[in-house]
Amino acid sequence: MKLYTYFRSSAAFRVRIALNLKGMPFEPVPVHLLRDGGQHRAAAFQAHNAQQLIPVLEHHGHDLTQSLAIIEYLDEIRPEPRLLPADPFGRARVRSLALAIACEIHPLNNLRVLRYLTDTLELSEEQKNRWYRHWVETGLAAVERRLAGEPETGRFTHGDGPTLADCCLVPQVFNAERYQCDLSAVPTIMRVHAQCMALQAFQDAAPAAQPDAE
Amino acid sequence: MKLYTYFRSSAAFRVRIALNLKGMPFEPVPVHLLRDGGQHRAAAFQAHNAQQLIPVLEHHGHDLTQSLAIIEYLDEIRPEPRLLPADPFGRARVRSLALAIACEIHPLNNLRVLRYLTDTLELSEEQKNRWYRHWVETGLAAVERRLAGEPETGRFTHGDGPTLADCCLVPQVFNAERYQCDLSAVPTIMRVHAQCMALQAFQDAAPAAQPDAE
Repeated sequence: MKLYTYFRSSAAFRVRIALNLKGMPFEPVPVHLLRDGGQHRAAAFQAHNAQQLIPVLEHHGHDLTQSLAIIEYLDEIRPEPRLLPADPFGRARVRSLALAIACEIHPLNNLRVLRYLTDTLELSEEQKNRWYRHWVETGLAAVERRLAGEPETGRFTHGDGPTLADCCLVPQVFNAERYQCDLSAVPTIMRVHAQCMALQAFQDAAPAAQPDAE
Repeated sequence: MKLYTYFRSSAAFRVRIALNLKGMPFEPVPVHLLRDGGQHRAAAFQAHNAQQLIPVLEHHGHDLTQSLAIIEYLDEIRPEPRLLPADPFGRARVRSLALAIACEIHPLNNLRVLRYLTDTLELSEEQKNRWYRHWVETGLAAVERRLAGEPETGRFTHGDGPTLADCCLVPQVFNAERYQCDLSAVPTIMRVHAQCMALQAFQDAAPAAQPDAE
């Protein structure tokens, strides 16, 4: 199985964590989002993903796209260890936490959006950075309220083992740290983050551990 | 079961479609996003959703959030008619199409983001509308390339019955039309949209059919 990846892409980071947690070996195919005018825009890559987005998982001749759909797929074909709980309410909770990051925070801060802000709207670097931090801090504060207030939170976001929600949370915290967001207001998130980063599967998935890291 | 909803919220629209397709009756609880400084920001609603977002589905004492997580939940507790195919590849495809809308288009154009553009960044109405149309047109063009090119596309986005992907596609087309986006470049999407809107379940979920419609 091949994973089209970019070391700094947090969507690819999510899938790398899931593959490592499942113990599924994969061949990383680096796609550099900045080089050659963006290798994800090249025809060779578009054949794998018409959306021109990272990551893509190639498996049995299929090109799977969208990190959350890929992780659900992995959980279906390799059920252990579970990345979604067995009960429908638990599954809904884990998915809603994953989506709270994947839909409410990350899309506002990816590369093409930041480029639109600076190139098309001609905003300053400072305005762009404020935008970035605003959505991260607002979004993580909402996740923190849930994690701190809901009894299902355990050592991880849901119970005592990592789930799909942790696969999304950790890359988002990496991004937040990179942009110097204020994380002092989200202690539960940081506790869970530390718990995750004690695991080899998360360490091996981190940007700096990738073959294409700079 | 209660659905906290706003007639114009496309995330709530997705869930209304799914509930109607499943034939599950629900009590709509209108939450007006513009009145009273935003009723979703009131303490009474925050008790249901710490993220202060619509929709919330209240079921058996649980508050379920995030439209895609809610629809997956409904598909688990009431499997017929299926909103996700049976095979893992098909499920991954449907989810990836749903996420292509829910993660790549919609988050950039919701109310709080548009407000940030005009209030915080002090952009003009024209710049805001260009931003809106840019992300809708770019995002739908990518979905169109997939629908037009992939053999799994049928009368609906996946095969000949509506799925989770159609629950996301139709509200996005409604938004696109409201903002006068150019939809001439996405004929497959418009064909599927028309197919969906021929069904009562989609008609009854539409903004204008809601009790809180203005």
